[in-house]
Amino acid sequence: MSNKFANASGYDIRQAIRAGEITGNTSGMGSGLVQANLVILPEKYAADFLRFCQFNPKPCPLIAMSDEPGNPIISVAGKDVDIRTDIPQYRLFQHGELQQQVSDISSVWRDDLVVFLLGCSFSFEEPLISDGIEVRNISENVNVPMYDTNIACRPAGIFRGNMVVSMRPMLAADAIRAIQICSRFPQVHGAPVHLGDPSLIGISELSAPNYGDAVTIKPNELPVFWACGVTPQAAINNAKPDFSITHSPGCMLVTDIANSKLSIL
Amino acid sequence: MSNKFANASGYDIRQAIRAGEITGNTSGMGSGLVQANLVILPEKYAADFLRFCQFNPKPCPLIAMSDEPGNPIISVAGKDVDIRTDIPQYRLFQHGELQQQVSDISSVWRDDLVVFLLGCSFSFEEPLISDGIEVRNISENVNVPMYDTNIACRPAGIFRGNMVVSMRPMLAADAIRAIQICSRFPQVHGAPVHLGDPSLIGISELSAPNYGDAVTIKPNELPVFWACGVTPQAAINNAKPDFSITHSPGCMLVTDIANSKLSIL
Repeated sequence: MSNKFANASGYDIRQAIRAGEITGNTSGMGSGLVQANLVILPEKYAADFLRFCQFNPKPCPLIAMSDEPGNPIISVAGKDVDIRTDIPQYRLFQHGELQQQVSDISSVWRDDLVVFLLGCSFSFEEPLISDGIEVRNISENVNVPMYDTNIACRPAGIFRGNMVVSMRPMLAADAIRAIQICSRFPQVHGAPVHLGDPSLIGISELSAPNYGDAVTIKPNELPVFWACGVTPQAAINNAKPDFSITHSPGCMLVTDIANSKLSIL
Repeated sequence: MSNKFANASGYDIRQAIRAGEITGNTSGMGSGLVQANLVILPEKYAADFLRFCQFNPKPCPLIAMSDEPGNPIISVAGKDVDIRTDIPQYRLFQHGELQQQVSDISSVWRDDLVVFLLGCSFSFEEPLISDGIEVRNISENVNVPMYDTNIACRPAGIFRGNMVVSMRPMLAADAIRAIQICSRFPQVHGAPVHLGDPSLIGISELSAPNYGDAVTIKPNELPVFWACGVTPQAAINNAKPDFSITHSPGCMLVTDIANSKLSIL
């Protein structure tokens, strides 16, 4: 599946999702295209959530949002993007509890829903690999390890919580280069937030990530930590809004936006 | 002394050096101005040394050189810069052995001498401090600690040797920010070359630097290592050219060039 769509356009991938031909993980599809995390909230929570993103841009880098509440067409993300049908798997929550996982949200769409699209680390892993840096979760073909930390996000209304980070082990010279490369991409989490001793940010055991899979850390490597898009999901879990929708992990919106367009330099 | 010239122009500082009013360290003088390391070699060594700088730009960032052999006026460095008189203390070497330290090299000037001016870490310490990052050697008012490493420079003719690095301890978040800031300044050593475990680059004991002074490393800090301008001096010591001149440590050429002019962004 992944191979067939590795170099497909965002439009063709979204059409295949609508047609039920793609039903799972979008990792490795649409080479060079931005893939986005999804958060959908009723309008009454939207201003607080937008403020939360504004206050915490590294874990919550906002790429796009609804033109107006109730409008499911996100034209800035690509041709004919309909957020109700163009993601392979959605998660529906009530009061912070997962209710069900569905492949189409047309039947639950409401006029008061506001869509938020947030940057994702896929966009910076690509330029790292192009530069010759090994990204361990990709070479080991697993989900990136993610950890809860003791780094408090700045709260906004009902949204609050600690930052979640992803971790990629690297040699120091590669970590320095990765900081340079990722600094060019503030809309996909930007530069790392920490490196070295994990206990300094409240992580006790690297081999036991809170989300995702553990990866090998070689003796000469440092763990390098990036702000992670799971942070807003954790904040929503804490806030327990009466209704919310997210993408299922790894099942992203493939946009028409080139990763290179997010480079500020 | 330092206070009087803290905000002086490069020209005024050089005039005071010529007049014998400034005889030592130029640290803290000419706020915002590039200070440069000096290497002077006979023409027969100059092509090899220039190639050594080209091959090893991080430890040997060339800012300016003679228009032609024998010309002591380095106009690109500032108004009326005469390299024979405008540095407080010079060191004269024969076959790699220090012969004497003098405050004027007019009497030993020759028609075959070629001047090289190399960037210095003073230029990046200033934007680090402006950004709120503590630079330990400055806050402890000592010379930065420098270490021999096992990182081989790429040799050029007779010039060869391992990289010398300077070390500044920082919290991880400050180290990440320092990498961003220093990446803008490739002509003054640029981004660090290593951070974390010093043994990985052949340093056995941080409390015993090979040059300069030890500084305090706090428990939560990482050592961060930059390529250092002592590297070309070490390469010259190895090469043992029959004649060479350098500045005395800390006694730099204060140019008319603003540090900000060396920022590539």
